[in-house]
Amino acid sequence: MAFQLLQKDPGTQARLGRYETAHGTIETPVFMPVGTQATVKAMRPDELKAMGASIILGNTYHLFLRPGHRLIEELGGLHRFMNWQGPILTDSGGYQVFSLAKMCKLSESGVVFQSHLDGSSHLLSPELAIEIQEALGSDIMMVLDECLPYPSTHETVAKSLGLTVDWARRCLEAKRRDDNSLFAIVQGGVFHDLRRECAERLLELESKPSADGRPRTFDGIAVGGLSVGEPMELAYDTVGDLAPRLPETRPRYLMGVGMPQDIVTCIGLGIDMFDCVVPTRSARHGLLFTPKGRLYIKRAEFLRDSRPIDENCPCYTCKNYSRAYLRHLSLSKEVLSAVLNTIHNLHYFLNLLTQARLAIRAGDYAGFQRRFFSEYQTGETRVPQP
Amino acid sequence: MAFQLLQKDPGTQARLGRYETAHGTIETPVFMPVGTQATVKAMRPDELKAMGASIILGNTYHLFLRPGHRLIEELGGLHRFMNWQGPILTDSGGYQVFSLAKMCKLSESGVVFQSHLDGSSHLLSPELAIEIQEALGSDIMMVLDECLPYPSTHETVAKSLGLTVDWARRCLEAKRRDDNSLFAIVQGGVFHDLRRECAERLLELESKPSADGRPRTFDGIAVGGLSVGEPMELAYDTVGDLAPRLPETRPRYLMGVGMPQDIVTCIGLGIDMFDCVVPTRSARHGLLFTPKGRLYIKRAEFLRDSRPIDENCPCYTCKNYSRAYLRHLSLSKEVLSAVLNTIHNLHYFLNLLTQARLAIRAGDYAGFQRRFFSEYQTGETRVPQP
Repeated sequence: MAFQLLQKDPGTQARLGRYETAHGTIETPVFMPVGTQATVKAMRPDELKAMGASIILGNTYHLFLRPGHRLIEELGGLHRFMNWQGPILTDSGGYQVFSLAKMCKLSESGVVFQSHLDGSSHLLSPELAIEIQEALGSDIMMVLDECLPYPSTHETVAKSLGLTVDWARRCLEAKRRDDNSLFAIVQGGVFHDLRRECAERLLELESKPSADGRPRTFDGIAVGGLSVGEPMELAYDTVGDLAPRLPETRPRYLMGVGMPQDIVTCIGLGIDMFDCVVPTRSARHGLLFTPKGRLYIKRAEFLRDSRPIDENCPCYTCKNYSRAYLRHLSLSKEVLSAVLNTIHNLHYFLNLLTQARLAIRAGDYAGFQRRFFSEYQTGETRVPQP
Repeated sequence: MAFQLLQKDPGTQARLGRYETAHGTIETPVFMPVGTQATVKAMRPDELKAMGASIILGNTYHLFLRPGHRLIEELGGLHRFMNWQGPILTDSGGYQVFSLAKMCKLSESGVVFQSHLDGSSHLLSPELAIEIQEALGSDIMMVLDECLPYPSTHETVAKSLGLTVDWARRCLEAKRRDDNSLFAIVQGGVFHDLRRECAERLLELESKPSADGRPRTFDGIAVGGLSVGEPMELAYDTVGDLAPRLPETRPRYLMGVGMPQDIVTCIGLGIDMFDCVVPTRSARHGLLFTPKGRLYIKRAEFLRDSRPIDENCPCYTCKNYSRAYLRHLSLSKEVLSAVLNTIHNLHYFLNLLTQARLAIRAGDYAGFQRRFFSEYQTGETRVPQP
């Protein structure tokens, strides 16, 4: 639960760091594969470990509804339940409540929602969000916040900050365990002034004495509510304005971001942690990442293509399989298609972050960005929805 | 391509053997996992190897239609295409044509059928069945035969033997490569006299000179057309009558069989090779095999069950996961559910065969059968169809 800032890049805002948790150390900048329902889709935990994943993400909303946090706690916690011994970050459930559940009703006490699985009604409060995450045994917990859709007006966003800050305070108060971390979440849409204000108000909370008199701090600061439909340039602007104003000694986590170009850009703006379903979800739909951009493996052009996805990639999939075979598996809707494609995509993302860390260590992150963008075609290939 | 009969069990017809192929040696009795579309569903080849699979099966019908045998040949053959370096047995495609395809029309030249994928029309002849299997690079090929439904009358079955024997002859003539094997298939329904007659007529083919004067023999004898809906007692009777009359020096393969109790029974009747989709298909539906019988992992009773599927099973799944977790994955329709369940079920089948071989080696296969049946409950749990 301690962040060490190891090095700052001279030409950008990029940072090299290390974060210690009870389940192991994370080298930052880091990409966290998403394990929504107590599994990173299609991956065995030993496959994740072998490809260098150092931390994964679990979704509080999904695990709360099925199989339930009390059940997971009873069975020894999420690490043991899913057989992942490394660090786990959990979100607060808020984002899924606002995006997946039905009939959300917001009040000061929390948010009432109906499960997308069976329509059952639940109240998610800041206190419950922490209770669930502590029952799961999360290493890094997130506060509950209000997630607004894009676009929202300055007035709407400004008004919602009160709730977000108050809920963050209540999460800080509700934390019971000492072996885990709690991250605050900065909201504020794409309005620089509101982002700054939210960050200030969240940090002010730390100076107020808590109910039991114990000191309370946020172990890291997340940036939420971006990559929700706005042009990514607006997101970059917002991050670029906010990040340098955040405390240097704490890790900064940009939630739900993103595509390789977003990650490479935002590391340069001072972000340390990322998560996204893009590598895993794309894999299941046949979209594969390479240094040149994305490749849609179902295309006819790969019918007789004996080359691997990427000739320079050392992953299990590229070492053993042709594009022609992967195309066949994908068209045949074989389970192994999801497995092999996911191995490759996660390897690509994890390796991208490894290369970024090496570049920061070498003091030339700007050069790394130039090389990345000179080769990577963002293209317009759409990621199909599940 | 040489079968060695190593040992005969004194109390039953069980046999211990060894079959050499260009891609490795098979210890018999053996269970062959089914790899229908150039993949054993949900398994990486290294997982199969680690659990002791020595040979897998490929389906000619499926590979002929998609991606096509010529494409696979161009890409280096089926072994290379799917990254499986061990032996591969391929069927002739006949069974799937009769069961899966539409509008089958039978003639002396072969069978015209419409693809279940796109309705395209094809003629599968004995010559083409061999051409496809040789293009795939199969280690053990099967002759094309006529597969009748159950029940069929004695008269219908008797009449169809002529075609089956003639097609077997043409397959023998059509074989070009020397690095692979060809197995004959005995048909004859559940009629002992017709089974005997078919076996005799197939073996007589070997005494006739082939068109090019080269000697031709079948490297093994398969029993086809059983486990197609008849009561298994009738299948056992048929196998029990036929097997001892087959040449002792050749491997005997009971096609598409079966459940653990069928395999344990038929080894005792003198069968050496088995294949079945039961372990892999059941796994995807949540039916898991244990020495006590099948367990349906989705049942509510496993909600908080922290035990592995089978406490004595050393497979990766049992070493690392609780029934509660596997139930959660199965109910959540996660890809990892198919992976972990398949690992366990295939491990169960492969280990069952290992134990059977050890019992034959120890000269007490009857004792093994008694112990198996004293514990294993066949039950009535239905295997859901895909």
